[in-house]
Amino acid sequence: MTKIQKATGSNGDYVDVPMRVRYAETDQMGVAYYANYLVWFEVARAELCRVRGFSYAEMERKTESFLVVAESFCRYHRPLPYDAPFVVRTWIRELRKRTITFEYQVLADGSDAPLAEGYTVHVVTDARGRPKSFPVDYRQFLEG
Amino acid sequence: MTKIQKATGSNGDYVDVPMRVRYAETDQMGVAYYANYLVWFEVARAELCRVRGFSYAEMERKTESFLVVAESFCRYHRPLPYDAPFVVRTWIRELRKRTITFEYQVLADGSDAPLAEGYTVHVVTDARGRPKSFPVDYRQFLEG
Amino acid sequence: MTKIQKATGSNGDYVDVPMRVRYAETDQMGVAYYANYLVWFEVARAELCRVRGFSYAEMERKTESFLVVAESFCRYHRPLPYDAPFVVRTWIRELRKRTITFEYQVLADGSDAPLAEGYTVHVVTDARGRPKSFPVDYRQFLEG
Amino acid sequence: MTKIQKATGSNGDYVDVPMRVRYAETDQMGVAYYANYLVWFEVARAELCRVRGFSYAEMERKTESFLVVAESFCRYHRPLPYDAPFVVRTWIRELRKRTITFEYQVLADGSDAPLAEGYTVHVVTDARGRPKSFPVDYRQFLEG
Repeated sequence: MTKIQKATGSNGDYVDVPMRVRYAETDQMGVAYYANYLVWFEVARAELCRVRGFSYAEMERKTESFLVVAESFCRYHRPLPYDAPFVVRTWIRELRKRTITFEYQVLADGSDAPLAEGYTVHVVTDARGRPKSFPVDYRQFLEG
Repeated sequence: MTKIQKATGSNGDYVDVPMRVRYAETDQMGVAYYANYLVWFEVARAELCRVRGFSYAEMERKTESFLVVAESFCRYHRPLPYDAPFVVRTWIRELRKRTITFEYQVLADGSDAPLAEGYTVHVVTDARGRPKSFPVDYRQFLEG
Repeated sequence: MTKIQKATGSNGDYVDVPMRVRYAETDQMGVAYYANYLVWFEVARAELCRVRGFSYAEMERKTESFLVVAESFCRYHRPLPYDAPFVVRTWIRELRKRTITFEYQVLADGSDAPLAEGYTVHVVTDARGRPKSFPVDYRQFLEG
Repeated sequence: MTKIQKATGSNGDYVDVPMRVRYAETDQMGVAYYANYLVWFEVARAELCRVRGFSYAEMERKTESFLVVAESFCRYHRPLPYDAPFVVRTWIRELRKRTITFEYQVLADGSDAPLAEGYTVHVVTDARGRPKSFPVDYRQFLEG
């Protein structure tokens, strides 16, 4: 019955995940605080996994593999006010044996000019943080 | 084209707002950190306003009225793991001249046994924090 | 060499933990967002444990005991602007076999009129969330 | 009487700001969630301003100038567990007419091998987000 916030667009390459700026996410400048973009990126890449056929939560649990963030980058073009609807468009830039890089664009509804854009690089590790190879099954999901 | 996370149920009394636990919202116990429930409550009452016909963001802007939180309470029954879908059911317990009280239940999909429940009491103030009366138009929206 | 933010006052009963409002913690009203008070409460009770002679982190690790939050309450009297220094005064209201209740006051520097006050009730559980008794050693620390 | 978390080292070039990982800042991997590093960076640059003789809060208020984040980057080398004490070392890489770049290192106590490092680029704007020049007085403080 309930409809969870989820990806609404996907062309095989990218996935669009709609969200809204929460009050908690604003700061006294009246716009979304800069660290929250990284949170939105995380929500978007989990959704990308779901669109590709698996749950990131389940991958962590079943294979004891974790996508530990090694690098994050964000360029902020225009601020987002409270309650503004927006989309995080995300895709995989590079998938290697032990690393994966996601790219993101924060888009206003119906526009292709990004309000922000960035990427995150992840290393696949076990529960103790030791690098390992991407679990085969899940790798195939991501390769689509 | 995009479908924002929004209320999916409403019987005139309450509104159901679906969400998912974000990775950012978990803590090292592996479940949602307790302060985040108050964030979810905020998202839910903004959605309740929308269902009743107005945007809380717009009310703040147009009438310079703010619903400042005076009290918050939450009872936590069962924890929520990462990525778990859930619903925040919210309704108005009391609407007075200068205060409003919202109640909330955090529900697992398809269950009526709350995982958590709580309330928030708000005082209507101007931009400087001085108490004022609820803007008439918006009050009528809330009274439905 | 480094001086971590830590308790600066303690009369055997309560512990005072100084902090400052972070930019990230403000919202577009220009003051600290209400859910962050619960985060400050958490920082303060960890510091109370330290003053009483143990680290909560270590207790979790060594005894596999967790103080799961069962209830939270906060009353907000006056808002806190960005960068404002404040103290969270905390003490144990009740320590029982399987539960513990902390009380908190958020105080401006040099004032005894709380800007906010609240409490949290915790249940002692094992790693799977099953209730258990308070680890004896740590209980004695808290009874101090 | 209270001692706020503040810079403990400064050689004219950099400022060291000690902190601890909050429970709220951990995620289910048991370490600090990646977006929180940007929050720590913010706390550190506010402290750098204080060491240089002014309060960023006051600068915003008195000159209606804002250091809007235009870019953020962080490389994560080793994770930080709950309650771990650490230092954010911060310095100004570049101060231009309308932009400023801060650099950061997250250091474990008594070690010079960064656990993480990054930078943020800021544009000086007025309250409406329009670029402007750095307020002269404050610029001089920073050039200190």
